[in-house]
Amino acid sequence: MTNPSPDMIERMPTREGVLRAAGKMAQLLPQTPLLALDLPDGGIVWCKAETLQPVGAFKIRGAWHRLTDLSEDERARGVVAVSSGNHAQGVAWAARRLGIAATIVMPNDAPQVKLAATRTLGAQIVLYDRPGGEDRDSVATQLVGQSGATLVHAYGDPWVIEGQGSAGIELEAQMECLAEGGPTRVVTPCGGGGLTAGLALALPDAEIVPVEPEGWDDVARSLASGTIQRVARDAPRTACDALQTPATFPINFAVMSGRGLEGLSVTEAEVRAAQRYAFSKLRLVVEPGGAAGLAALLAGKVAADGRTVVILSGGNVDPATFAAIIAET
Amino acid sequence: MTNPSPDMIERMPTREGVLRAAGKMAQLLPQTPLLALDLPDGGIVWCKAETLQPVGAFKIRGAWHRLTDLSEDERARGVVAVSSGNHAQGVAWAARRLGIAATIVMPNDAPQVKLAATRTLGAQIVLYDRPGGEDRDSVATQLVGQSGATLVHAYGDPWVIEGQGSAGIELEAQMECLAEGGPTRVVTPCGGGGLTAGLALALPDAEIVPVEPEGWDDVARSLASGTIQRVARDAPRTACDALQTPATFPINFAVMSGRGLEGLSVTEAEVRAAQRYAFSKLRLVVEPGGAAGLAALLAGKVAADGRTVVILSGGNVDPATFAAIIAET
Repeated sequence: MTNPSPDMIERMPTREGVLRAAGKMAQLLPQTPLLALDLPDGGIVWCKAETLQPVGAFKIRGAWHRLTDLSEDERARGVVAVSSGNHAQGVAWAARRLGIAATIVMPNDAPQVKLAATRTLGAQIVLYDRPGGEDRDSVATQLVGQSGATLVHAYGDPWVIEGQGSAGIELEAQMECLAEGGPTRVVTPCGGGGLTAGLALALPDAEIVPVEPEGWDDVARSLASGTIQRVARDAPRTACDALQTPATFPINFAVMSGRGLEGLSVTEAEVRAAQRYAFSKLRLVVEPGGAAGLAALLAGKVAADGRTVVILSGGNVDPATFAAIIAET
Repeated sequence: MTNPSPDMIERMPTREGVLRAAGKMAQLLPQTPLLALDLPDGGIVWCKAETLQPVGAFKIRGAWHRLTDLSEDERARGVVAVSSGNHAQGVAWAARRLGIAATIVMPNDAPQVKLAATRTLGAQIVLYDRPGGEDRDSVATQLVGQSGATLVHAYGDPWVIEGQGSAGIELEAQMECLAEGGPTRVVTPCGGGGLTAGLALALPDAEIVPVEPEGWDDVARSLASGTIQRVARDAPRTACDALQTPATFPINFAVMSGRGLEGLSVTEAEVRAAQRYAFSKLRLVVEPGGAAGLAALLAGKVAADGRTVVILSGGNVDPATFAAIIAET
């Protein structure tokens, strides 16, 4: 079996896998920078600018680790992914580089910039009706059944988790160099928990803090209750399209709860304030979902102790949307 | 004499000085990333993201090299700089770090974001009436006469030129690592010619292409005519505040013309298109003047041969200004 699902998990992700993924990434791409950011209270936080990856998000890590581990036979049958855009671009980028056919199932309300970029990378796009409640996983399952392609899940996949965790290996080495010691705390945007679980494996000695939009804090509630919780059907609208996942998967939950993580949530206004802060202080374009971790820090919901790192996880945002956010005062 | 002027040059900048400045920068700050950017014609250009320096511009380099070479006595008397904002922040940043008092002469129409940032860095600001035609150099000369402070000129200073050139040493090493060979061509925004002259010293084997806004192409005209030309009194308005310099200085001109450089100019619309391209493809905030080099490449005024580097020199822009630019289609 190569297609993990909540019911059929072929293996658990491991720290060894994370280290192997980090080795692959070191061969593939330069490290994204770790930038020092002064906070309004006089403190400092270290920002891992995953917005500067070739596809504008960390998702390239998990996709690369997954696709490079496929057999020749699996590569020939292609891959299928489901994504609002960043995972889509990560898989399309890796597939093009490896000569693998990629089909991406995307919501019809995804940001135009993400749809266009995924097409430019040569992937075939199949739209599903997210506002209308169509089930994306059933669309993907049907595609996989037709073609024998491998489903590369956006977060519920051991390779994907390990790949995302390579960001943790990188930032630890950068902290050792820049701040003479590893991170004590890593604050990260959290959707389905792929990056969060990867960081938890990568950094056993650091506190990992997943941050979700208000009303989409299923991971925080799952960790607090001890069982996987789903987002409510009447969840509020959020600008954080990258974090709109209905529920985490068992392998992600097992890793996160095994480390005893606790989650936080941030408001839409706090997210916008963080985007403005990153614009003016770091000159970085950060999408709403990518700024959730920084939002928690700026709102004082988690402390920066001088050895705290925040992941700026993505920067793919429509120009008009971003213009409206930074012009707001 | 520690205050160079067009008539009194104490020494010429040297490649040895550039290498010494690069050594200091390597001790001070991590390298800014060199990012691969796909061009619309299918080519690639390497972008040196100086927007990610702590003050959002390369100016920190020249200021650091200059201030760290001051004697104890000179440090005690403080420094004076004249700048629309980026050099101001570079000098203020370096001065604060070294415990030196800094006074900055800034135009009263400088971007608010640059005025505020310079104040935050602890510098004293003296405004002059740029739209009214007040001579900034006479304001600075008066301040220097009163205090015995050292004038750190924004470009007409051998240390400043050498310091800016450290960006060239850095990007050459990064190109060797990422592209297995040095740059053949470096395209750079050009105001007074500090960065351009520094790059010319740093990279004797690469073609250096300075780019200015239309109507502010005094360096291009100077290089073409063989003598220093000034910007016309009725020069058109430009959004590139960082490149609004009336004329280059003899030491800059000597280095640039000695290498046989030729300059280019770009329109305001080409600059805005480049800012939008950097926003969507690199997720970087680039100010108008910082995008002039990229504008020349996107407009087809200079070719990218696969080993071409463009400097994204600064990213300090008022939010409302940037919002209007990226929302434009």
